[in-house]
Amino acid sequence: MSSDANLNSPDFSRNNGLLPAIAQDADSGKVLMLAWMNAEAYQETLRTGRGVYFSRSRNKLWYKGEESGHVQKVVQLLVDCDRDAILMRVRQQGAACHEGYESCFFSEVTANGLNIIAERLVNPDDVYNK
Amino acid sequence: MSSDANLNSPDFSRNNGLLPAIAQDADSGKVLMLAWMNAEAYQETLRTGRGVYFSRSRNKLWYKGEESGHVQKVVQLLVDCDRDAILMRVRQQGAACHEGYESCFFSEVTANGLNIIAERLVNPDDVYNK
Repeated sequence: MSSDANLNSPDFSRNNGLLPAIAQDADSGKVLMLAWMNAEAYQETLRTGRGVYFSRSRNKLWYKGEESGHVQKVVQLLVDCDRDAILMRVRQQGAACHEGYESCFFSEVTANGLNIIAERLVNPDDVYNK
Repeated sequence: MSSDANLNSPDFSRNNGLLPAIAQDADSGKVLMLAWMNAEAYQETLRTGRGVYFSRSRNKLWYKGEESGHVQKVVQLLVDCDRDAILMRVRQQGAACHEGYESCFFSEVTANGLNIIAERLVNPDDVYNK
């Protein structure tokens, strides 16, 4: 059965098979990141219980934390009313953002430009390309 | 100046000019919906202080609440580290979801299928096509 015929799953017939997936901290409610899932990434997320995405820049599956160790344990997975967006409530190891912030959404748009509203949790140089 | 040259704005040169925008309740932290913005929708969001999206199905700007009255007052607008996703903390009038739920993410994926985890706030028939 194709994904789009399965009313119990996200509808990967939409948006060229690549759906936006939000990761939200299960405890604080903070939105940590938005990334993309194809059907395979979704199935791997279900299978592993961890956030698995499709990297558009690398054009392959991205097991979140595979390099940094900053994995996401999925606590709850939701789809929206059109089944073309995914929301995961997660427990995040370390920092969700590759720039070392807890959340990728650390920049507020203001009349005077972007305002960084968070502190780095980790130094990216300590995490990547070691 | 084009949007993509403006480091203080979302980068609408990405994703074919249509970026995912998350609306989150500013008080409870609940994720209410995910929709899409082009540069014009973004500018209209800034101008009006309310959530304005681009409707892919209707192929035009969508002033959230224009029919239902369920407008979103924007409290804070954030971009992610790649400036290709938007997060808005909002105060939502009524229900964010056109199906009458507070949030569009009312369906949990479980081993036994989708599980509705919320109660309808309003009857869609009372809101639309009056």
